[in-house]
Amino acid sequence: MSETTETEFDAQTAVVARPEGGYAAELAPGWSVGGGLNGGYQLAVVGQALRAALGPLGKPDPISISAYYLSAAVGGAATVEVDVRRDGGSLATAAAELRQSGEARITALATYGDLATLGDDVRTTAEQPELPPVEECVPGSLAPEEVRRMAPLMDRFDMRFHPDQVGWVVGQPSGKGELSAWFRLAGEREPDPISLLLVVDALPPVTFDLGMPGWAPTLELTAHVRAVPAPGWLKVRHATRNLAGGMFEEDCEVWDSAGRLVAQSRQLARQPRG
Amino acid sequence: MSETTETEFDAQTAVVARPEGGYAAELAPGWSVGGGLNGGYQLAVVGQALRAALGPLGKPDPISISAYYLSAAVGGAATVEVDVRRDGGSLATAAAELRQSGEARITALATYGDLATLGDDVRTTAEQPELPPVEECVPGSLAPEEVRRMAPLMDRFDMRFHPDQVGWVVGQPSGKGELSAWFRLAGEREPDPISLLLVVDALPPVTFDLGMPGWAPTLELTAHVRAVPAPGWLKVRHATRNLAGGMFEEDCEVWDSAGRLVAQSRQLARQPRG
Repeated sequence: MSETTETEFDAQTAVVARPEGGYAAELAPGWSVGGGLNGGYQLAVVGQALRAALGPLGKPDPISISAYYLSAAVGGAATVEVDVRRDGGSLATAAAELRQSGEARITALATYGDLATLGDDVRTTAEQPELPPVEECVPGSLAPEEVRRMAPLMDRFDMRFHPDQVGWVVGQPSGKGELSAWFRLAGEREPDPISLLLVVDALPPVTFDLGMPGWAPTLELTAHVRAVPAPGWLKVRHATRNLAGGMFEEDCEVWDSAGRLVAQSRQLARQPRG
Repeated sequence: MSETTETEFDAQTAVVARPEGGYAAELAPGWSVGGGLNGGYQLAVVGQALRAALGPLGKPDPISISAYYLSAAVGGAATVEVDVRRDGGSLATAAAELRQSGEARITALATYGDLATLGDDVRTTAEQPELPPVEECVPGSLAPEEVRRMAPLMDRFDMRFHPDQVGWVVGQPSGKGELSAWFRLAGEREPDPISLLLVVDALPPVTFDLGMPGWAPTLELTAHVRAVPAPGWLKVRHATRNLAGGMFEEDCEVWDSAGRLVAQSRQLARQPRG
């Protein structure tokens, strides 16, 4: 890490404005899983480009972002085009598209604002996931060698799984359709609204817990960032309730160290074929 | 109703291809609520335009659609531009924008496919809302005169509320953040994948049940259509778990008469100010 404490996450999601418009990014192969780059990582890169475009308008933070995954991204050069559709009041909405070699990887819509200016009122009936203390949870680094080879992205963060929800590793999934874990970026890089876009898609597919190992390609993912996360470990919970017709929804919640629900997301994914 | 059984819903969501590209629609003022047209109605019109564009490619049905609401729509002429971003395999993804007088009302992304070709496997742990029989539920037509004047859209369908969840009408909301009702379009027009885009945003805001009457403007709504609905009454359930910072998420589920979960949606909306 440099003295400016730029972490791996910051360096590898960075975007640079191009003279001809849009932003350039260099996608890092270390975020790959299975055949392509992790969808949450791609979303964070798109999020950085939107922040670069909308931050100067006083809207630096993602409030809502909806991404449609069109083709598998790989390590290497990419561009993000941003087209502001509306800027008014406290929010701005833009379309964004991540491309490689002229081919669209993700097309997205997003509304940005300034999370720091939202009111402090919280009336949440949602309850945070029950997780044993970090040191009693199962680190991803204990995953079998073949899993880690297939998922280099697991080295990008520290993930500690609920010990009751790792039966899938040894072929004994709970069947409940639920996974939860502690999460922290490498280098102890503290969470912020952009990194939450990664976090909502960082855990293994919840279908692992239904006895379906294998890659579950995301068709669509929408994330709502509800508050600026406090420093420290995050709690992340994935759940599904409706697996049907070869697809399933995966709901994700992210809770910060202050016990606040900071992000909610839902994705529609294809059921693994395996 | 004409002999071709074209119903109000069909006539008022119809789109016509324009020689210069895109589609023309005539938004009907009867779908208004408060200051503007209902968001679900607008979404159904966008859904019809997408169906017109993608149906000929073998993808007639919405699988996922994400709409960002930019300005309030009113009765009158509108256009829907459709831009296909990807067409491959069994799915196609397109951007769509609903405009009036050149101003964008909704900008959306959607993935379409053919619901009839999806597999029949269903592994749903979600449970349908408990609703008394239709005739024991409270019809929307009993709503106070001032509510009906503010919401002419209530005449577009037959909605029967759970009797335990209508306390808000008389100033006694349950505080649970839940509303459920039977739903059927006027003219007994049977549900189909497009009409489900209306249904997910047809009930009053779930904040009514939290003691917050008033309009709750949608910022973003994503709907997943999971199956072709069977004919008959639909069961619709709205719930929220996280009201914070002046916003709340509203989850909607739609179940058909065969007991199948046919649509799931989530929207992010602004808390009513009232």
